[in-house]
Parts: sequence; structure tokens; C-alpha cells
Amino acid sequence: MRPDGRQPDQLRPVTMERGFAKFAEGSCLLKIGDTHMLVTATVEDRVPPHKRNSGSGWVTAEYAMLPRSGRQRNQRDLMKPNGRSMEIQRLIGRAMRAIVDMSAMGERTITLDCDALQADGGTRTAAITAAYVATYDAMRWMIKQRMIQKVLMREPVAAISVGVYKGQEILDLDYAEDSVAEVDMNVVLTASGKFVEIQGTAEESPYGIQTLQKMLVLAKKGVDELVALQKETLGIE
Amino acid sequence: MRPDGRQPDQLRPVTMERGFAKFAEGSCLLKIGDTHMLVTATVEDRVPPHKRNSGSGWVTAEYAMLPRSGRQRNQRDLMKPNGRSMEIQRLIGRAMRAIVDMSAMGERTITLDCDALQADGGTRTAAITAAYVATYDAMRWMIKQRMIQKVLMREPVAAISVGVYKGQEILDLDYAEDSVAEVDMNVVLTASGKFVEIQGTAEESPYGIQTLQKMLVLAKKGVDELVALQKETLGIE
Amino acid sequence: MRPDGRQPDQLRPVTMERGFAKFAEGSCLLKIGDTHMLVTATVEDRVPPHKRNSGSGWVTAEYAMLPRSGRQRNQRDLMKPNGRSMEIQRLIGRAMRAIVDMSAMGERTITLDCDALQADGGTRTAAITAAYVATYDAMRWMIKQRMIQKVLMREPVAAISVGVYKGQEILDLDYAEDSVAEVDMNVVLTASGKFVEIQGTAEESPYGIQTLQKMLVLAKKGVDELVALQKETLGIE
Amino acid sequence: MRPDGRQPDQLRPVTMERGFAKFAEGSCLLKIGDTHMLVTATVEDRVPPHKRNSGSGWVTAEYAMLPRSGRQRNQRDLMKPNGRSMEIQRLIGRAMRAIVDMSAMGERTITLDCDALQADGGTRTAAITAAYVATYDAMRWMIKQRMIQKVLMREPVAAISVGVYKGQEILDLDYAEDSVAEVDMNVVLTASGKFVEIQGTAEESPYGIQTLQKMLVLAKKGVDELVALQKETLGIE
Amino acid sequence: MRPDGRQPDQLRPVTMERGFAKFAEGSCLLKIGDTHMLVTATVEDRVPPHKRNSGSGWVTAEYAMLPRSGRQRNQRDLMKPNGRSMEIQRLIGRAMRAIVDMSAMGERTITLDCDALQADGGTRTAAITAAYVATYDAMRWMIKQRMIQKVLMREPVAAISVGVYKGQEILDLDYAEDSVAEVDMNVVLTASGKFVEIQGTAEESPYGIQTLQKMLVLAKKGVDELVALQKETLGIE
Amino acid sequence: MRPDGRQPDQLRPVTMERGFAKFAEGSCLLKIGDTHMLVTATVEDRVPPHKRNSGSGWVTAEYAMLPRSGRQRNQRDLMKPNGRSMEIQRLIGRAMRAIVDMSAMGERTITLDCDALQADGGTRTAAITAAYVATYDAMRWMIKQRMIQKVLMREPVAAISVGVYKGQEILDLDYAEDSVAEVDMNVVLTASGKFVEIQGTAEESPYGIQTLQKMLVLAKKGVDELVALQKETLGIE
Repeated sequence: MRPDGRQPDQLRPVTMERGFAKFAEGSCLLKIGDTHMLVTATVEDRVPPHKRNSGSGWVTAEYAMLPRSGRQRNQRDLMKPNGRSMEIQRLIGRAMRAIVDMSAMGERTITLDCDALQADGGTRTAAITAAYVATYDAMRWMIKQRMIQKVLMREPVAAISVGVYKGQEILDLDYAEDSVAEVDMNVVLTASGKFVEIQGTAEESPYGIQTLQKMLVLAKKGVDELVALQKETLGIE
Repeated sequence: MRPDGRQPDQLRPVTMERGFAKFAEGSCLLKIGDTHMLVTATVEDRVPPHKRNSGSGWVTAEYAMLPRSGRQRNQRDLMKPNGRSMEIQRLIGRAMRAIVDMSAMGERTITLDCDALQADGGTRTAAITAAYVATYDAMRWMIKQRMIQKVLMREPVAAISVGVYKGQEILDLDYAEDSVAEVDMNVVLTASGKFVEIQGTAEESPYGIQTLQKMLVLAKKGVDELVALQKETLGIE
Repeated sequence: MRPDGRQPDQLRPVTMERGFAKFAEGSCLLKIGDTHMLVTATVEDRVPPHKRNSGSGWVTAEYAMLPRSGRQRNQRDLMKPNGRSMEIQRLIGRAMRAIVDMSAMGERTITLDCDALQADGGTRTAAITAAYVATYDAMRWMIKQRMIQKVLMREPVAAISVGVYKGQEILDLDYAEDSVAEVDMNVVLTASGKFVEIQGTAEESPYGIQTLQKMLVLAKKGVDELVALQKETLGIE
Repeated sequence: MRPDGRQPDQLRPVTMERGFAKFAEGSCLLKIGDTHMLVTATVEDRVPPHKRNSGSGWVTAEYAMLPRSGRQRNQRDLMKPNGRSMEIQRLIGRAMRAIVDMSAMGERTITLDCDALQADGGTRTAAITAAYVATYDAMRWMIKQRMIQKVLMREPVAAISVGVYKGQEILDLDYAEDSVAEVDMNVVLTASGKFVEIQGTAEESPYGIQTLQKMLVLAKKGVDELVALQKETLGIE
Repeated sequence: MRPDGRQPDQLRPVTMERGFAKFAEGSCLLKIGDTHMLVTATVEDRVPPHKRNSGSGWVTAEYAMLPRSGRQRNQRDLMKPNGRSMEIQRLIGRAMRAIVDMSAMGERTITLDCDALQADGGTRTAAITAAYVATYDAMRWMIKQRMIQKVLMREPVAAISVGVYKGQEILDLDYAEDSVAEVDMNVVLTASGKFVEIQGTAEESPYGIQTLQKMLVLAKKGVDELVALQKETLGIE
Repeated sequence: MRPDGRQPDQLRPVTMERGFAKFAEGSCLLKIGDTHMLVTATVEDRVPPHKRNSGSGWVTAEYAMLPRSGRQRNQRDLMKPNGRSMEIQRLIGRAMRAIVDMSAMGERTITLDCDALQADGGTRTAAITAAYVATYDAMRWMIKQRMIQKVLMREPVAAISVGVYKGQEILDLDYAEDSVAEVDMNVVLTASGKFVEIQGTAEESPYGIQTLQKMLVLAKKGVDELVALQKETLGIE
């Protein structure tokens, strides 16, 4: 039923590569199908104004797609504010702040640059999943620099999209599915199955509570698989 | 337990005033506690590029707060893109498009200007609830102009916030509650109880499935009350 | 002769409502005919760079119209500088600074946000008239906060438009009159009849000194009535 | 009494040079004391949207100061909208449109670029006075191109500042006078003594009707001298 | 003498990978030392205004660095014009237009997006060298689409930096060398050794004609090696 | 052969006028044919962030053309970044920094505003040649202010364009020549004949080494003449 022949509850093939960006404190290139997301983590000795003199740190994200990451080229428009990008980078930032213990970081900011080298649906959830890996490695670097004493993340976090496509709940929509889906939902979950963020939109017709529940079960399955791969990539357990 | 003494499942006092803006095709001033949201509906004979020659219409929204709508003044910064505003106006637009039958509108755009005259939490959900009323009146105006033959909305839509405050699930957070809530969720529902949008964020610590379910029950109760008031305001049943 | 049947020297019906904006230090909603202008006064403990370390305060204004305040919707264009708005807010700021004793305010700024909720001509003069009321209440608030010892305004200030319409000098032009007037003049006067600002433009054909004199007499009459209402609204004499 | 020893009713030395800009259809470099204003007139076969298909033309102006035209350098800030510049260019445009017969120009625009090469007060009035000369020459060029049949200006227009300085009404304020003047007024008059625009601001304390009248007499005297020089420069009578 | 032990006339290790970006009409990831440059070629059926109705095509380039491509993070500042980027993308565009036969392309534009994934000096010359490969593949795609009949490039083009470092002329400066070099020159040459562009800057002290000549010999050697690799990568001779 | 009858190695008529801008610390109006370039030098007691606390100064340049400096009017577009201007002002800044001894200037910035009053080709090289004169006079002013003890420039610098026009190498291209030249090169040289910058672009077809050498000889001749005039203008030897 799915364009690429996947089962409703099947992720696209996923790989994660640490250290793709040599100069960054942490980085991860996550490929999920034809979506290739590069996340770099930068550690800087400054915090935004609302955190100054708080003794606490900050985690923030920026998101962009390369102009020809997708099937069509997007203009690299310098002047026009882009609502979609800002909405996405706010989501990524919130997701990471929910599991990072910022109070023990000192007055430092970790900036997660999430750049889609190739985009075939699911870039925002790929960014969150890769951001966990990049942040982990940035914290290992901070430990080496004696800035912190241990990795300051309470548990892994990962994200995946679910939706309703031709009347069927499915996991991990690619671009072809996403562009015609009836419902589109992004779910950010921790390794222990708690919700960090849930954003579900009826693109065409509103949906009932059973649909919501089925989608949440699919999301849990997808995140479990992603968290397993995060741990393997990072060599942690 | 709540700062203003409300029950966990109790809305703030709500009023809706139609026709507040004399020159607009439809308008509604919704007051919910100290949040005062003015929504005007403008009908124009044009559609955005992606709808041209489709025979179909479009509904879009813009959102802003007056600089001194809240406890602090916000700068009226003309140049800086504002991620929060764009995220909110995209939400309002999607919510209205989910229940409007745009295919029968002709190539016309309804623009919903949502301006918070006073802001004490819950402005985005207030905007959606008021937008339904303003759009309804704009469609009555369109009927008089013989642009359309009936009100082109499948059913009422309304929105409310729910959250977790001091460990308790509550309905309709005001600013004081929202700024310290553990979980903050905005729910957009139709009169028949279907989901149009659900956006839930763990501000501090991730939350479990029971919490999600309790919040959804509260949201349903709040929206039922708002829909009843929408109908009374519009004189429909 | 006038579209709405007024006498040449007659104002539209005027009302002033103090405290419309609950959270501001002072506010006034002034309605003059179908022009509805909301002015809020914000007091902040900072001054612009050119006033720093002067011991003196500052008064400034910002002006905008809600997108659908008028008969047509105006685009909420974020990027384009708007010459008209800036010209108007500079006028409002100058008018207020002419009667406020800024030297006794301490290094504080009063920002007057002037937002037209509805616009039917005369918004800039309405803003000045309402700004006096909002500033007065902001100063009462400052007295309560022990920031100042008395209201620091030398006398009331108000403004009104006059013009030449179909060859006749008239007072308080509405939009229908303003758009075809031969001469358009805005006059800002103090309660004692002194000029704060006078801006008169020949839209079509230059005008002579007699016309100027007749318009100034009309302006004086209009301002006298507005000052009387300001005093009544504020409960001062 | 005046810093440079002038009489209260005395202009600074004035010169006008036609054709300073070789490539423009008309141009004038006006020097009035140390204020040096270059105005070029450009004729283009297009009109702004609101004039399309009207058969009528348009006159517009743009104004800027070179960064180091004055005693201090101003930043050449590309992004920040500049309220003062826009206010001035709107004034210049209105002044010229009041005396040009645009209905006979065809659908053409004359753009007046007013650039202060050196600024010592009175740049906006200098721009209007020079703009008349540049426009006159541009119309002579249009006649040669057989675009129009005669110069389409009803009569000369010129502008000058007047004000109150140390309690005395004076003509043509330089920067030193302008920066401390109690009242500052710009007056745009036609050769026949009619008002095109009058903008008078009390910088410190409001002023009475006698002061206004004295300033208007001074302005008339100054404009008469400027118009005589315009005519001499253009070789018209 | 060189920080990484290279000979004065030795390039860093170079690899070129075609087709890195799946969705683009052509693409090349060129790695030269730690500089990793991704160039994608997009073919679109439109030309800029100055080429419309000319029957001829256009080639243009855009250039950016990922925020954390280098040792320090650069702000992803949306609003600020960036002189360096624009200078570079103009250079890349000119270089490609010098060897492409645009007259036979039809009214189509090839846009070369040059994004530095990692930056260690020499990104602009790397972009030109990679752009040749990406454009070649885009033209192969155009041949398949029957848009053109053969590859419309007269001969290969490549670019490399040369400079003076510690008094010695060297080839292919990395970031460490570039930041302290006395002279920095970028040379764009064709396979037959003709100049397309030469840009040489004395960073510290001006240089004589002998130095210029030695640098040009080095550049020729470097470009010869790069052209050989371009041909091997493209499978042409 | 040349449109204006010049010999291939002949400059257009050149004049330099010091002190054209009365208020600037130094200034020069350079006329070369119909290109009229005004450069002002401003001395300020601040340096950009990367020079703070270095004890050293900075020299920077800004470049613009008046809207009607050329045959066509250019829009005074406030918002659009302009790649050409930025490229030019970066070139001018680098050229001056190559011969100024900034280490002895103290933490001061000299800003060179280069504004083309009239443009007929060669504005960027004219700006560099005039900037030397303006900077020299600014340094004389600094000596008078006891900021420095002598003129801090190692030797004169000047610039000129050369190119290939109808197969012939020529010196000092005007607009008519520049717009159809096969090769266009800007050369910045010191009085002693050393290269500060060389930028040569093949507009149509790449060029060989002999062409390069012939152009460099022409440039040397042109710069020698310009340096002689700089010295005469400044009254130095």
C-alpha cells in the first residue's frame, strides 16, 4: 500500500554517523531513507540575556534546508522571514531542553545547527534524533575540557512522524506520503516512553480519539528503534 | 489551588461580541478573563499563487499582540522576524481551513486578523475560537453579496489550552499558570469532538499517557462550553 | 453640505474611556465618530542614548493602524518601512514633549502606543488628544510609585484637523471629506491657545492667508471642546 | 545677534547651478551658505500603480544626506528605516505636485533625487527650491523629445525655514541656530504668495498667533528672493 | 616549512564525488584537505530579466558556509547582507559563464549552489572546480531530456589559490597559511592555460612582478592536476 | 579606434580637488573624464570589535553611486543587499590598509566614504586614487590634533583599469568601452610599482599570459601619472 512497499509500522532504513563535521564539538549525520540531516553541536561561553547571571546554561537550535536538498530548488531568500523554519527550530530547541540538565552546564550555550543536506520528509524529527547524538558527543568534549563532570542528559530523546495515509495509520512518512496524508503528527518521546512534544494536525478532516491512540502506539515503536540505534552509535547502553 | 480560585476544569469568564470592527466583513471581540482578542475577517477577490486557477478559495490568518497588551511592553520591531507569531498564525490558519469548505468559496481569500488587545494567556486558542465567529459573519456577508449560497463551514471549531500545574491537570491556563506549568497543551476540536490540532509540550519534565488522556478530557469539556457560546452569539443552533 | 450633515464648525461625537487597557500605566480609548484610537502609556526605567546621564526623561510615541481598521485591509508588511507611520509618530512625540516637563521625570521613558482600532479620518490628531489623557494617568501612577511628586504637564494639549472642502473651511474631517479636501491641516494647540504644531498641506491648489486664518479659528474651537472633555474624563479642572 | 552676523530677515548667500549632473534630464546644485543640495530630475515612462491607465503623470522625490555631509558622520545604514528621510521626501513630493500639471504629462514619472552633499541646516527647503529648477529643465528636455508641448508648472515654488531664536523671529536658520531654536517652521510658497505647505513646530514652548504671523512675513520675503534667483538661473521671467 | 609538511608546489589530497545530492540535476562533493565543498546544479526553465526573449540561457551561483563548517561558529544571520558571500558567488558565476556556451542552452538557468560543509581555506576555488563537474552532469541530464544536444562547455575550468607565506610562494593555502599569508591570490584557469580570472591581494606589503610570475606558474601546475581529476571523475578525456 | 579618440595608453583628463567637503577631516573630488568621485575621510575614536584593545587603528571604506549618477537611474533600494557595492568597498578598504601604518594610529578608525556623483566607468579605481588624497589630508588634521606625529602612509597608492577592447589592450576604460570589453582588469599599484591588488576578468573568452603582461605595463603607466597628480595636489614630493 505504501509507495515504497513498507509495512505500516516500518521505519525507512536508518544510519547515524558521528563526527561527520570535524571542527564541531559534536555532530551527527542521520540518514533515514533519502532524508539526510546533518546536526552539529557548538559549545560557546555565553548565554542569552534571559539566562545571564543565572549560573545556568542554554540549549538552542537552528534549522535550514540546503536550497537543492529537495526535488525542487528553494530560493536562498535572505530577507524573507520563514515561518516554517522558525517553527521547526523552536520545536527542536524545546525537545532538547526537556531532557538536558541545563542548571549544571555553567553559563554556556549549546547551539544545534540542523541542516538538511537532502530532504524527503521527516526532517524535523530526524533533526531531533540526530541532535541527541551530537549533544552527547559535545558533552563528552565538555567533560574533557573539564567544563562538566558527566553527560547532563536525563535520558535519550528521539522523534518520528506518524500519520493517516489512505485511511491507514502509518509510521515515518516520506515526502510522497506526507504530501497527501489526511493526518500528520510529529511525536517526541523519551527512551522511557514519556511525551516531550506531540503535534498533530488534521490536514483535511478532523480525526477521532481511536486514530490518535493508534498513531501514538506507532510512534512509540519507531522511537524505541531509533533510541536503540542512538545508543549503539554512541557506544552507550 | 489555582491563583484565581478556579476549579481545575473551570474556564475563565467568557464573552463574545460580534461586529466590534464596523468596517470588516465579520469580526468578534472575545474576552476570556483578562485576555481580549479581536479577530476581523476580510474577504478579498484574490487567492495566493498556489490556488490560482483552481476555482477554490483560501483562508489565512495573521496574529499580533499590541505592544502593551501584556504586563510588559513588547517592542514593535518592524524588521525582526518573530518565530512565535508566525507559528501561531500558521496554527490558526490550519485550524480554520480544516472546517471551511474552500472549494465552494470561489477564488476568494478570507484573512483573519487576530490582534490581542490584552493578553493574559491563551491568546492563540482565543483567536481560533473568535475566528470561527468572525468567519461565520463574513460568510453571511458573502451570502448577501451573492458570492456564496450558504455558510461554508462543516461544523463549529474552538480551541482551549490545558496543562499540568503543580501536578494537577487544569483547563484554560492564565498567564500566571502558564508561565510555571509543567505541561502546556493547546487543543483544537470540532463541535463533534474530533481533533483538528493537538500541540502539547513538556516544559520541564516529560509526561505519561494518563496525563495526556486527562488533559484531553478537560479540553473536550472546555470546547463544548465555548461552542455553546459561539452558537448563542451567532444565533444559530 | 457635509456628507454626514454636520455644521462646518462641528466635531463628530467624541467619547474618551480611561483605563481601557488594564495592564498599562495609563490608557485612553478615544472615539470620534467612527475613528477609534487606543493609546497606552508605558513607563520604563530607561532613556534613549542621547538622554543617558542627563537626569532627564523622555516621551516617545509609536503609531499603527490595525490591518482591518479601515474600509480596505492594509497588509501587515513586516519589512517595508512605512513613511506615513513614522511621520505620524514623530508628530505625536513632539506634541507631547512640548508640554511635558521631562527634566523632573528622572531617567524614565513614557512610550505612547497609539493603535487605531478603527480608522475613519483624523487618527493622528485623535492620538494626540488621547495621549494627553493616557500620559496624565501614567503620571498619577508614577506619583503612587513615588517616582515623581506631581503631574509633570504644563497644560493640556489636544489636536484636530481642519481643511477646505468644496471651497468651505471645515472642522474635523472624516475620511470621506479628507480624501477629496482641497486643503488639509492638522493643528496641535494647548489649552491656552498656543501653537504646538501646525501642518497644512494644499492637496490641489495653494491657498491664501485668509483661508489659513479661518482654519486656525476653527481649530481653536475644536480644541477647546476636546480639552473640556479631557478635563472631565480625568476629573480635573 | 545671529552667530554669523546676519540680520533677522537675511538669507545666507545663495547660488544655483543648472546642469551639474551631466546625465540627468535636469539638475540643480543649490548652495545656501554651507548647505549644498544637489537635485537631479529623472524622466521615466512609467507611473506608480495608482496612476496606471489614468493618462496622467506623477512627480515624486527621494532625499538623502551623504554620510559625511555634516559635522558628524551618519551611518549608511542599509536596513533601518529612517523616519526623518521619509518625512522629508514626502514633503518635497507634495510641494512639487501642487504646482505641476500632471494631467498633461502623459504616463510618465519625474523622480527628484535630492542629495545633500553638505548639510548646515535647511536641507529640505533647499531641496524644494532646487527641485523647481531641475524640474523646469527636465520639462525643457521633454519638450525637445516632443513628450510635452510646454513647461507644465503653474508658477514657481520655493521654500525656506523661519523660526524663533533667542526670542526673535528669524529667516533661514543655519544648523547652529536650528539646533537651539524655540520654534522651527518650514514654509513652501508659490511665486504669487500662496501656501503650498506650512509646518511649524514648537521645540520648547508653544507660541502665539503674533509669532506665527511674523514668521509668515519673513518666509514671504525669503521666498520672493529665491524665486527671483530661480528665474534668473533659468533665464525666464 | 608548511604547517602540514607539504612541498611549496603540492596540493592537499583531493577527491571528487559525483551525484552526492540525489535530487539535483548534477552535483559534486569535492574534498581538498579538510575543506569539503558541495555543489549542486539546478536546471530551471527561466532566465533573469536581462536575458528574457534573448533565446539564450544563464548560469549563476550562490555560495554559503554552514554555520559550523569552520573552527568557529558563524551566525546564521538572515537579515545582514554579507559582502564576502556575494563577492564569492559573483566570482563563481563569472568563472562558469566564461566557459559555458549559454547561447545554445535555450532560455534556461543553471543555478550552482555552493555550500561549504567544512571549511579549511580555499572554499571559493574549490567551489569553481566542483561546479565544473556538477555543471557537466547537469548538461548530461539536459541531453537526456532533449533540451540540448551536447555538453555546452568549451573546455574544463578549475581554480586554486596561491600566495606568499613566510616569504615563499606556495600552492593551495589552507586556513592556517591563509590567515598569515603576505599575499593571497585566486587564479581561475582553463584546461588550455588561459586566464578566466585572477585576483591577487597584498595582505601586508605590496609585491613585485617576479612574485606575481612565480605564483602564476604554481597556479598553472595546481589547475593541471585538478583538471586531470575532473576528467577522471567525469569519465571524459 | 577608441570612442572618444584617445590613444590606447592615454588616460582621460584628470583633476583632483582637495577639501570639497568642508566638514570632513579630509576630502577629494576626483574627476576623470565624466566620472566624478567624491571621497571624504572621517576620523573617529573607535575601532571595530576585532581591533579593540589592540592599540592599533583601522581604515575602512563605503561606496555608493548617487541614484542618477549614470545614464539610467538606479533605485535607491533600502532593503536589498547589493553585491557589487560591497565587493567594491571591500576592495577600497584593502587597498588603503595595505599602505597605511595602522599600528601607529591609536584606536581610531578612518572611514572613507566614496560616493560617485557622476559615473562613466572606473568609479572603483577613481575611489582608491581619491582616497589616498583624502586620507593624507585627514592625517594632516590628525597631526594638528596631536593624535599622530606624521603622515602614516608608506607611499602613495593609486588604481586604474586596463582591458582588452576590440582585440587591443587599452588604459582607463570609460563606460562605453567597459560594457563591451573582452577583458576587464583593475590594478592597484604603489608609487614604487608594487602590486597591492590585481583583479582581472575575462568577460567573454579567457586570455593568455602575453595579454596579461601588456595590460600590466599600461596600468603602470597610468598609475605613474595619477601618483604625480596626487603629489601635486597634496603639495608633497
